[in-house]
Amino acid sequence: MSIIVVGSVAFDTIATPAGKVDNALGGSATYFSLAASHFTDVRVIAVVGDDFTAEHENVMKKRGIDTRGIQHASGKTFRWGGQYMENLNEAKTDFTELNVFERFQPHIPAEYADTKFLFLGNIHPSLQAAVRLELEGVQLTGGDTMNFWIQGARQELIETLKLVNILLINDGEAKMLAGDNSLPRAARRVLAMGPQALVIKHGEYGATIFFREGAFGIGHHPFRAPTLPIDEVKDPTGAGDSFAGGFMGYIASQGHISREVLKRALFYGGVMGSFAVERFGTERLQALTRGEIDARFQLFRELTHLE
Amino acid sequence: MSIIVVGSVAFDTIATPAGKVDNALGGSATYFSLAASHFTDVRVIAVVGDDFTAEHENVMKKRGIDTRGIQHASGKTFRWGGQYMENLNEAKTDFTELNVFERFQPHIPAEYADTKFLFLGNIHPSLQAAVRLELEGVQLTGGDTMNFWIQGARQELIETLKLVNILLINDGEAKMLAGDNSLPRAARRVLAMGPQALVIKHGEYGATIFFREGAFGIGHHPFRAPTLPIDEVKDPTGAGDSFAGGFMGYIASQGHISREVLKRALFYGGVMGSFAVERFGTERLQALTRGEIDARFQLFRELTHLE
Repeated sequence: MSIIVVGSVAFDTIATPAGKVDNALGGSATYFSLAASHFTDVRVIAVVGDDFTAEHENVMKKRGIDTRGIQHASGKTFRWGGQYMENLNEAKTDFTELNVFERFQPHIPAEYADTKFLFLGNIHPSLQAAVRLELEGVQLTGGDTMNFWIQGARQELIETLKLVNILLINDGEAKMLAGDNSLPRAARRVLAMGPQALVIKHGEYGATIFFREGAFGIGHHPFRAPTLPIDEVKDPTGAGDSFAGGFMGYIASQGHISREVLKRALFYGGVMGSFAVERFGTERLQALTRGEIDARFQLFRELTHLE
Repeated sequence: MSIIVVGSVAFDTIATPAGKVDNALGGSATYFSLAASHFTDVRVIAVVGDDFTAEHENVMKKRGIDTRGIQHASGKTFRWGGQYMENLNEAKTDFTELNVFERFQPHIPAEYADTKFLFLGNIHPSLQAAVRLELEGVQLTGGDTMNFWIQGARQELIETLKLVNILLINDGEAKMLAGDNSLPRAARRVLAMGPQALVIKHGEYGATIFFREGAFGIGHHPFRAPTLPIDEVKDPTGAGDSFAGGFMGYIASQGHISREVLKRALFYGGVMGSFAVERFGTERLQALTRGEIDARFQLFRELTHLE
């Protein structure tokens, strides 16, 4: 089944120990779409400026992504500059130019109205909520957020979390959102805010999904999917959005939730995140084949599989 | 089969957000022995002072641990004080009193001479090497070290690593020892220094074992065992030594190395580390049953098990 993603499209300027890239196509909606497109049909809602060319749009179209929800506004596309010179796990932001993104009001094309799966990328929680409420037919909503909103728009975020079925955040975000440094306790506190499931991403160590008691009728034991440390991380940008794309894309492709579907989705999330960081920008996600994806899925499965 | 551990016996004064304890029996040899004693016969080599009473020794004897290798010296036992108030993953040392440990010269009782399995706890690399060389019948040697020796006794450590079959260290130590911030690359560099296998401990995320090409004749794909985040970590002291005790103790209990034995050993390491932190000092390790251990083994196995 199709999935809608609402999020950012950006041009990123990134420096890492492995090199540098200027104005690479990025943003949460871009990474998510490209990752999810390997599993299911993807429909994007985002805003771009005059500098977003047909060539950029073709990166998505080549992967079969429905770009009718990309609004073209007058001005420049969102730009972000950052570096990971000291620490590959945390970006040091050099600059943020919101540009057309500052006045982003998501419009949902009529053709998207029948969509059952939705991912709310990392944008203002009020915009996330508006999109969810307008899409009345949605059956499963995934969502992301970040420290900036946890601190700066906490009340709006709390309201939005009531609309999100599965929240995907990292260790630091979960602890900040819960105000608790113990991971399992933080997980329980976040789940009490609304989501039925919480995926906590652990960077190079994988991710864990925690369930609210009775969520999806599938029991509440957590599940962990490991990732294999990548030989050389060229560019960590977009790893989390690519994880979300693999996770949500796989779920949408199955069309239903079960414990086994969620477990496999968690592995596919780790797989897509691990591919994303192997090249700068979205290069690796564009060129991937399903064969490569499933080979890495098997590799990660064997990584923790006892006889 | 039996296993020998050489390491420290200490009295620890520890403060964590969960409370405080004064002069609790600890040290690398103590945690290792208690953890390993749930799997196999353990023989300790260590030094203690006049303040180490029969009551302290009985903590080990009750678990069937052979304490004939504990030397009684005139003076006080090694004492350490530390706290984990800000960060449960890293101790802030308040004081270190080496006391009788400063002049520790390991003596190996004649009754230990036939032992086939050895663990070199975290002491000066030259002492580790001396013990290994004196025990000519040893077939498998595990070893630990820490930043203090990596920086302060690097040459001696490099020599000792040639005598160690399986090295167990954490992420930070592996990166420091290798001089490389990429984990898989660091693993390869450490393996090139001598060990056939390297276990890298990731704290609450589990541990990964990396193999040198052809090691033990079992292939070189890494293996990861997850741990389940513990609800409340009361006291992280000794988690690494308890991990090593579960890992090496299980291997010794099997009496041989195979890929499956090493994989299960890695899970048992995580299990024993996760128990150790549930109470202050060695309290939890003393009271454990094999039933509890195997129940948690199953829990951790299911944590990542796909159909």
